[in-house]
Amino acid sequence: MAREPKLSLIPLGGLGEIGKNMMVVRFGEAIMLIDCGLMFPEEGMLGIDIVIPDISYLLDNKEFVRGIVLTHGHEDHIGALPYILRQIKVPVYGTKLTLGILQGKLKEQNLAGEAVLHTVKPRDTVEIGPFKVEFIRVSHSVPDAVAVAVHTPIGVVLHTGDFKIDHAPVDGQVTDFHRLAQLGDRGVLVLLSDSTNVERPGYTMSESVVGNTFDEVFRQSEGRVIIATFASNVHRLQQAVHSAVEQGRKVAVVGRSMVNVVNIACELGYLHIPEGTLVELEEANRLPKKKVVILTTGSQGEPMSALTRMAMSDHRQVEIIPGDTVIIAATPIPGNEKLVARIIDQLFKLGANVIYEAVSGIHVSGHPSQEELKLMINLARPKFFVPVHGEYRMLIKHAGLARDVGIAADHIFVVENGQVLEFTRRIGRIAGKVTAGRVLVDGLGVGDVGNVVLRDRRQLSQDGILIVVLTIDQETGLVVAGPDIVSRGFVYVRESEKLLEEAREKVKCALEKCEQRKISEWSTIKSQVRDALNRFLYEKTGRRPMILPIIMEV
Amino acid sequence: MAREPKLSLIPLGGLGEIGKNMMVVRFGEAIMLIDCGLMFPEEGMLGIDIVIPDISYLLDNKEFVRGIVLTHGHEDHIGALPYILRQIKVPVYGTKLTLGILQGKLKEQNLAGEAVLHTVKPRDTVEIGPFKVEFIRVSHSVPDAVAVAVHTPIGVVLHTGDFKIDHAPVDGQVTDFHRLAQLGDRGVLVLLSDSTNVERPGYTMSESVVGNTFDEVFRQSEGRVIIATFASNVHRLQQAVHSAVEQGRKVAVVGRSMVNVVNIACELGYLHIPEGTLVELEEANRLPKKKVVILTTGSQGEPMSALTRMAMSDHRQVEIIPGDTVIIAATPIPGNEKLVARIIDQLFKLGANVIYEAVSGIHVSGHPSQEELKLMINLARPKFFVPVHGEYRMLIKHAGLARDVGIAADHIFVVENGQVLEFTRRIGRIAGKVTAGRVLVDGLGVGDVGNVVLRDRRQLSQDGILIVVLTIDQETGLVVAGPDIVSRGFVYVRESEKLLEEAREKVKCALEKCEQRKISEWSTIKSQVRDALNRFLYEKTGRRPMILPIIMEV
Repeated sequence: MAREPKLSLIPLGGLGEIGKNMMVVRFGEAIMLIDCGLMFPEEGMLGIDIVIPDISYLLDNKEFVRGIVLTHGHEDHIGALPYILRQIKVPVYGTKLTLGILQGKLKEQNLAGEAVLHTVKPRDTVEIGPFKVEFIRVSHSVPDAVAVAVHTPIGVVLHTGDFKIDHAPVDGQVTDFHRLAQLGDRGVLVLLSDSTNVERPGYTMSESVVGNTFDEVFRQSEGRVIIATFASNVHRLQQAVHSAVEQGRKVAVVGRSMVNVVNIACELGYLHIPEGTLVELEEANRLPKKKVVILTTGSQGEPMSALTRMAMSDHRQVEIIPGDTVIIAATPIPGNEKLVARIIDQLFKLGANVIYEAVSGIHVSGHPSQEELKLMINLARPKFFVPVHGEYRMLIKHAGLARDVGIAADHIFVVENGQVLEFTRRIGRIAGKVTAGRVLVDGLGVGDVGNVVLRDRRQLSQDGILIVVLTIDQETGLVVAGPDIVSRGFVYVRESEKLLEEAREKVKCALEKCEQRKISEWSTIKSQVRDALNRFLYEKTGRRPMILPIIMEV
Repeated sequence: MAREPKLSLIPLGGLGEIGKNMMVVRFGEAIMLIDCGLMFPEEGMLGIDIVIPDISYLLDNKEFVRGIVLTHGHEDHIGALPYILRQIKVPVYGTKLTLGILQGKLKEQNLAGEAVLHTVKPRDTVEIGPFKVEFIRVSHSVPDAVAVAVHTPIGVVLHTGDFKIDHAPVDGQVTDFHRLAQLGDRGVLVLLSDSTNVERPGYTMSESVVGNTFDEVFRQSEGRVIIATFASNVHRLQQAVHSAVEQGRKVAVVGRSMVNVVNIACELGYLHIPEGTLVELEEANRLPKKKVVILTTGSQGEPMSALTRMAMSDHRQVEIIPGDTVIIAATPIPGNEKLVARIIDQLFKLGANVIYEAVSGIHVSGHPSQEELKLMINLARPKFFVPVHGEYRMLIKHAGLARDVGIAADHIFVVENGQVLEFTRRIGRIAGKVTAGRVLVDGLGVGDVGNVVLRDRRQLSQDGILIVVLTIDQETGLVVAGPDIVSRGFVYVRESEKLLEEAREKVKCALEKCEQRKISEWSTIKSQVRDALNRFLYEKTGRRPMILPIIMEV
């Protein structure tokens, strides 16, 4: 009897987070992917726009890749698709709203016609090579999210995607416990589960509590109510619309991505806005203040967003005035705290009342807390457990939870991106590592900015640059023009003429020494100049600008 | 009868926070300062080391400044003194430990001999011009912290400094309620109170709970315990030492600032370490792991700190191994979350058990929560209330609390840095604005980096720089060398030869056009070159590097 092929799971991509953006499921010579997301650059990735997973492994195994399955429509799960589909043409499966959001992105990149998209519904099953892939309803901060059960020849791999357990979801679509329980009952080989909120004890509150807060705030506000939230949180938009209708307010939508999502969600039937409720901003500006709600983007303090421009009194159509109430219905993503804080301060200074998370609990998470995580493990009762979607310390914590609810320690695998997890029906093990990592996208360049460029940008950002140019006569070897010094980002030139003049003298000195010692190698001359300037400038200013000698020859 | 001079209060300095770093108290022609702190640079202040308050107002009124009073020894309250004392020579008053910490900083800046320092004790009163300044014990995250009651001819100004109400302080020194109550009883004109934690309901926990956690962790750990915390939190160090002694562990101290503070605090009697407890790291490395505690810096993930180097396996003397327990006894300061998270992940990957705030509550704040703030207002029963030490939204919140406990809304002043608050015995009002702001310190330069330099650094950091050099014969006007193109931080040059070659062609083209049109003005030529390259590069790469044309003449 031939040996049965092995099942491999390989998390790819991620900055710090593991298995978030892309998960490879491989059985023998068939590969399918779960999600295909992007990341936002970390501090230090200067000038980088977005980061996508390194898919060298997939390109090496291109002929085996059979399909991509999407769990939901958030950027970190679908945002890399336009890049990946250019290199690997395979069908994509997702629910209606997920594919609706994706279509918008594909259009922006002129790929709309090229992708083969298959719409699925919860409880649908599709065949992708040897895999039977089943979609299971879960609650999350975007509608139409699903978990994925991959029925492989040797057992079921259950991937939760991003989920929470919301007993009173806005759209009435409760996480499909029944199917999860059935699967658990029949036997799940591996459970991969969302670790984002594993550090939070208890339960994540229902999205519907946000609606109650909206109701209350709308009632108490004598002026306009401006709500900033994630555009994709259609549930929250729905609740804002609902509160608005109840209290006779009209709704205006501001901000490109908010307008896009509202359009898609309305069109596809995920957002219900009674006729006459939606108004243009111009009309809203003519209505009594108490009759207006504005939905907008910028809940993360993004510098170019509508809310930031309003806070900075820089928005063409919305001027914040005393009496306005601004609700920031989001928690700052780590790294954005200061941006958001500044917006809140500015809004207060303009006289608005600001309702924000630290003082109001106006945001609830879309991810499961500890008790929900335990419930998921107990429903699925997997043989093997792999925490995913989290930074390393969270996976460690999630592994601890899994042990607490009875999964054997040696059946739990905490892995890093690129590590290959290999399973038979009976055993699981870490079986090597494939190339995994990040590809930086800067403007139109994908992967052309690497460590050298970033290191230069970092040095430039700290102390600027000082350029020394001189022209040498190639016959005599004498300096016939310069040395001239030009600096940027180093000192304020107008107030530093003396310093730069002295620096020029240092360069001349270094050049003379080279001449005396009959040094004519350009590289040596350049390094002499660089060293002399480095020493001198550090002594005088305590700074180390990049020093760039340029020699021309006539 | 001559009109009585007015009392003015002016908060100076601060990035976002108001009145944190320096408060001016002025009565007629006498000025005293409360605190003189520095700030750490915000995002976008590229290459800046620290930020100090703009003291133009003080320099304009130099002859009136009589003294500086310090509330406690934290950087944001004393760190700008070395810079300010160079410009304004006045006596400085503070408690023993505060001045001990300050002395260290003055020595580093070669100012130790020049400053006139007066040591005070709680309940001491000193005369500074027309002010009788009284020092009142408060609890905080550094020992020997005081509030300041300034008895002016028209009433008492009570400034809380940074404080908390700790009923079980580690050093037994409870906030001096009795004196605060007495002052309140006799009448306080203005209360200025710490708003840092105003967003937190309830009470801040006692520092002593951290000691209980230390006890427990020390007991459960079979290996070394490594504690990272703020060096100045001597109470916490004391508790670590206490737990170590109880359980027969020796203590080693690592990290420059930690070693400094431990030395000063021991010398001045604020930290008590039984003989034989402190060991050098070499000795600690020879002891059984269970017998060792290491105190270290780096609780904020600072890149050069001891803990970061340990986590990156880059510390010469401490190698993290499985079995180690690392306690990060601090909350990340906003902006440091990602740095700290990375350290925790790395430590877990090395096999350490990491105890950190999100999962353990191992850190308690040094600032008062809402109930403590209300208590302070009720103790002081001030006529006027001014929330300080906080960002604008926090002051707004604190003003709300003050209204809740009965201060009339028109007796509460939320101000910004530089705004002048003027008081008589009966009325308070905002009376104009003086120069206030930030002075950037970069290396040895104080205030020489401004908006132009920062803007350049920002552009350089995003897309790098492209330098175009050419040499022109001044007689013929012909290009005799170049154009050459050099770039840094833009693209990886080795892989972009074609792009740069094309760019060179664009430059040549632009130069030819200039020649045809008989343009000989360098500035025009440069801007033609810049425009041509800008367009070309943006089209090809989607990036906008700084373009710097340099023309030489022979």
